[in-house]
Amino acid sequence: MPNIIKLKKIVKKIFLKKGLSLKHSRECADAIINAELVGAHSHGLSRLKMYCNRIDKRLINPRPKIKVKKISNSVSLIDADNSIGFVSANLGIKEAIKNAKKSGIGFVGIKKSSHYGLSGFYAEKAVKKNLIAMIYTNAPPAVAPHGSSKSLFGTNPICFGAPTGNKAPFILDTSISKINRGKIRLAKKNNQKIPADVALDESGNPTTDPKKALKGVQLPIAEFRGSGLAWMVDILSGVITGANHGGKVKDPFDDFTGPQNVGHLFFVFRPNLFVKNYKKRIKENIKIIKKLPKINRIKKILYPGENKFNVYKRNLKKNIQLNRNVSVDINELLKAI
Amino acid sequence: MPNIIKLKKIVKKIFLKKGLSLKHSRECADAIINAELVGAHSHGLSRLKMYCNRIDKRLINPRPKIKVKKISNSVSLIDADNSIGFVSANLGIKEAIKNAKKSGIGFVGIKKSSHYGLSGFYAEKAVKKNLIAMIYTNAPPAVAPHGSSKSLFGTNPICFGAPTGNKAPFILDTSISKINRGKIRLAKKNNQKIPADVALDESGNPTTDPKKALKGVQLPIAEFRGSGLAWMVDILSGVITGANHGGKVKDPFDDFTGPQNVGHLFFVFRPNLFVKNYKKRIKENIKIIKKLPKINRIKKILYPGENKFNVYKRNLKKNIQLNRNVSVDINELLKAI
Repeated sequence: MPNIIKLKKIVKKIFLKKGLSLKHSRECADAIINAELVGAHSHGLSRLKMYCNRIDKRLINPRPKIKVKKISNSVSLIDADNSIGFVSANLGIKEAIKNAKKSGIGFVGIKKSSHYGLSGFYAEKAVKKNLIAMIYTNAPPAVAPHGSSKSLFGTNPICFGAPTGNKAPFILDTSISKINRGKIRLAKKNNQKIPADVALDESGNPTTDPKKALKGVQLPIAEFRGSGLAWMVDILSGVITGANHGGKVKDPFDDFTGPQNVGHLFFVFRPNLFVKNYKKRIKENIKIIKKLPKINRIKKILYPGENKFNVYKRNLKKNIQLNRNVSVDINELLKAI
Repeated sequence: MPNIIKLKKIVKKIFLKKGLSLKHSRECADAIINAELVGAHSHGLSRLKMYCNRIDKRLINPRPKIKVKKISNSVSLIDADNSIGFVSANLGIKEAIKNAKKSGIGFVGIKKSSHYGLSGFYAEKAVKKNLIAMIYTNAPPAVAPHGSSKSLFGTNPICFGAPTGNKAPFILDTSISKINRGKIRLAKKNNQKIPADVALDESGNPTTDPKKALKGVQLPIAEFRGSGLAWMVDILSGVITGANHGGKVKDPFDDFTGPQNVGHLFFVFRPNLFVKNYKKRIKENIKIIKKLPKINRIKKILYPGENKFNVYKRNLKKNIQLNRNVSVDINELLKAI
């Protein structure tokens, strides 16, 4: 039997010990192990110690009193009371799904949350209920606005999920930085280099050293376009929800001066609002695109999310390989129990 | 007096002659002259002849019977009856604004439309009513899906508009291709070269020749990320609205086998759904970002839309410079009246 179930139990146990409820501990373990299974190690166990540190310092509230305010049939606002992001995002997507099932549209803002892992994880929950999802979250400063030499925007992902009629959902989950910040952190943890054109050091020079990159500036995709998209995400998830924005979301690894107050926005709707035959149409869309002539060395054209789904399926049958640093973290956390 | 008013009258007159109603002719003239004023010449008068050609061939319906179907307080579907895009988009944004004023959210799908010019033009109309707007439209094949050697996605812009509390609205209006297709067309019309890294010719080699680029493939921003965003826009504006999708939107310049059947999606909502002090928050957000240290040679950090607003204000006082090809087009069209 692969070690996934055992690892999930361990993670759950750690969160329980930190004071989270059984339900919340389970939600955290699910999200973290899912990140490992889809190959997003930067959003998985490598963050476990960070979450625990923040709970110890009460910057994440282990027993949050989360308030859900119903604004209309479609709109709800969640005050997550500095809950761990997994818990608030889980509640947020559930509320958005409920509203969408009732009124066609679910539009849910969340404030006073914290890092929730992968946006795609929540989009998938809506897609499994046969809904389309658009998800935005802000994040601590990592990317400089176009024209500036200082980081302010987070890697602010844009996430879109849609049912495909196939088992693998369409899940686009793309940060607006050239590289995921978690990947830079992981490279630092593992003493590896990062690609040459993704970040600048503090003096504004290109660097392949993850430590220097974390102190410097990450580059956005497509210059002013990426910077504009990051700004859009900050408005959507931060300015309008009541969460921190404008570079004030705290870095969960380095900044212990207060809770992060991350903001999320979940927009979920029925794919058959305008057409009766959505399933047929999306299947046709994907079929046409998959049949296009391919460039050299490409065997299959994949839609966003398809590769992650395949990785997930493969990994379900295998042991999750833990790198040394993660093993050390887990052992330390277990010892303290 | 600058020539703007005269030009607007001429354009209106041409559309009237082509059989459009006075109201619709005025809407077309407004949108086309606005594109000239914001400096988007590729979306202005350079397309006038194309629109007229398509009306002559009845691929654009000059007297459309547009149907607006109310689905809920928030949701409407518009069948634009192959109207010119300006008219259907105008109606679409009005409907979305109306729904948002009533229920907080306006979500409007439009099918059987055609090229509508700049997305930002419609986003601005919502922002002027103190609403946030997200606008998606598909477009004829220009960009190859990641892994394919054939164009299928349009330059499928992502547009986001938000009130700023300042005169200049926040309007992000970015195609997912490295360069706007209209700019390549304009380069072709003016016998100019295009940048080296934005397009491939039919054999898959980089080209600076706009003719070869139009026959070949445009490159998306950020490789698979841009390709994924283009795919998302095709689903949002084409698959779910009932419009053409999957590369079936017809090229308005070259394909006279039928109407374009472009799809648009307008999502508009009140910025104060979750917070009472949106204006204060967005002002603070912009202020913080503008105060950041700047990179060399940058005097001011601008938010998306600010530059276009400034260009617009400057151009209002000047004559619009027509290039020779555009003058020839206008004279030809006027002669036929």
